[in-house]
Amino acid sequence: MSDFSSVNAVEWRDDTLKMLDQRILPEEVAYIEYRDAPAVAEGIRQMVVRGAPAIGIAAAYGVVLAARRAYAKNTESWRIEIEEDLECLAQSRPTAVNLFWALKTMKAHFSSVEGNPEPSLLALAQKIHNDDIAANQKMGVLGANLIEPDAGVLTHCNAGALATGGYGTALGVIRSAFSDGKIKHVYADETRPWMQGARLTAWEMVQDNIPVTLLAEGAAAYLMKLKRIKWIIVGADRVAANGDVANKIGTYSLAVLARHHGVKFMVVAPSSTLDMNAESGEQIPIEERSGEELHFSYGRRISAEGAQAWNPVFDVTPASLVDALVTERGLVEQPSTKKLSLLMG
Amino acid sequence: MSDFSSVNAVEWRDDTLKMLDQRILPEEVAYIEYRDAPAVAEGIRQMVVRGAPAIGIAAAYGVVLAARRAYAKNTESWRIEIEEDLECLAQSRPTAVNLFWALKTMKAHFSSVEGNPEPSLLALAQKIHNDDIAANQKMGVLGANLIEPDAGVLTHCNAGALATGGYGTALGVIRSAFSDGKIKHVYADETRPWMQGARLTAWEMVQDNIPVTLLAEGAAAYLMKLKRIKWIIVGADRVAANGDVANKIGTYSLAVLARHHGVKFMVVAPSSTLDMNAESGEQIPIEERSGEELHFSYGRRISAEGAQAWNPVFDVTPASLVDALVTERGLVEQPSTKKLSLLMG
Repeated sequence: MSDFSSVNAVEWRDDTLKMLDQRILPEEVAYIEYRDAPAVAEGIRQMVVRGAPAIGIAAAYGVVLAARRAYAKNTESWRIEIEEDLECLAQSRPTAVNLFWALKTMKAHFSSVEGNPEPSLLALAQKIHNDDIAANQKMGVLGANLIEPDAGVLTHCNAGALATGGYGTALGVIRSAFSDGKIKHVYADETRPWMQGARLTAWEMVQDNIPVTLLAEGAAAYLMKLKRIKWIIVGADRVAANGDVANKIGTYSLAVLARHHGVKFMVVAPSSTLDMNAESGEQIPIEERSGEELHFSYGRRISAEGAQAWNPVFDVTPASLVDALVTERGLVEQPSTKKLSLLMG
Repeated sequence: MSDFSSVNAVEWRDDTLKMLDQRILPEEVAYIEYRDAPAVAEGIRQMVVRGAPAIGIAAAYGVVLAARRAYAKNTESWRIEIEEDLECLAQSRPTAVNLFWALKTMKAHFSSVEGNPEPSLLALAQKIHNDDIAANQKMGVLGANLIEPDAGVLTHCNAGALATGGYGTALGVIRSAFSDGKIKHVYADETRPWMQGARLTAWEMVQDNIPVTLLAEGAAAYLMKLKRIKWIIVGADRVAANGDVANKIGTYSLAVLARHHGVKFMVVAPSSTLDMNAESGEQIPIEERSGEELHFSYGRRISAEGAQAWNPVFDVTPASLVDALVTERGLVEQPSTKKLSLLMG
């Protein structure tokens, strides 16, 4: 694991949850403390923390805070008292399934708790956190095996340490392949409108001394035409049972362009991102955020007053455009309902 | 012609060239005065004015200023004195061929000049300017004929009044089709890194009360998947003899995505944009600008220190992905060397 992963998106320290404020990176590295679940939900909504696995981990710690409050209110009926906070966490963002998975995993533990639920729920949240890092390390090795020596690769958004418990999904594969000497250069889409590529991915790569070049998303097709990349490597916010992948807006565009140019397309996601209840991408809710994210840059208006804006923040890439889905349970090439069903068995 | 075209990118007034400073639109509407050709060249380089036809017109007026200076230096040998200024204009930007076409057209007139060259060169520059507006109006009608009623369309960058002598190429077609009641809605790619879509196209559309919705470039493929658009309509900086089209970075990406989704792709460009000396797109020089355009937003650093940036500002769309090329000489469907050779006769 790289030294860099000592900077964590989500940390439990001094009995509170601390989240690195990703809205102000890389200008400032600052943590915000959270002492109750509604504040955690608001932090997720405001994108203090983002990235499907990191959202899941934040929600798990949010449940610990919710349990603390509920138990303080009523040591007997805390399982009822906690419901409002759980609902609040569930309402924070709709697309990343890891959020719902984490809430469900935490809740499944409620029945076996005796007395104060905080210690055992905290232990479970920390297990979710540590399992995520371990999954990323395993996926890093599995994904790196697919990459030919001296490859250029392109990644989109940020699927790195900042989006996960640590190490990263797509960036975990890139870190692993780079340390194996397989990756020569990483290209990062700047990723409008939130600039996760420019602000977060570039920062992570620079910290690890991995050569990284930013480009506007409009330049990705030209990059492929120039044959500078062999793979596009991305994370996922939710993978449907048939292998359709919801991920940051622009991912679907890259997948179509990759197929056109003979570039391979890899999705790296822990099994907590797989939603076997969603038959296909059609069942995945796609969040639309405020148009203000397009109209303003650092509080300054870019666009003409009177213009509208459409700001879907995810899109769905059909399984048919995915060459490899890497999970900690194994690698699936050309994912399908049958293959994923066997994997998740 | 719309009322809006009373705001001109390039104007000749009071014996000087005035250019609307497009770097600060839409926040401020301010003109800069130019009294010599090197300043005009610098204005083109710094993108005070941009858009292939507008650059050509600015260069034509730049030649008038150059002739004034050369004639003041030496009434006999002004044709030699002027060379340095012409070279300076030619060096301003490499991709838009209208620049070179305008310089050549102006220079071809030198031999027939007697006495002070300024009046007749000014008349020629004004003819170039007026012809461009007339061409745009004609192309507007030709292009609008292709569009089915109630269509949604997507445009990229700004190929409007601001990029031309007035009315616009791609936006001329959109203006014409909208006033015919054929276009229901215009989508505008924000167009990183210079935000021509957000800053300029949205502004032009709002001025003309044409409903316009901005989107990040990464969202264009999803827009097509949702079947919200029938046509993508763009301008061009240079069209090769075989119909390959150099235009703003991201255009090629849209053309590939359009073909994948069964969306039609229209290029609107006056014949001054056709370069019959470039056999194919391979011969078109693609400008790369400073990475600072990606690293900074309004002077504020977005990206991590230490990251590199790749900033090609044009790409080439192969003729095979172009459904219609609209010029003032006529409409060419599925352009080819043979068809363009007939058109340019």
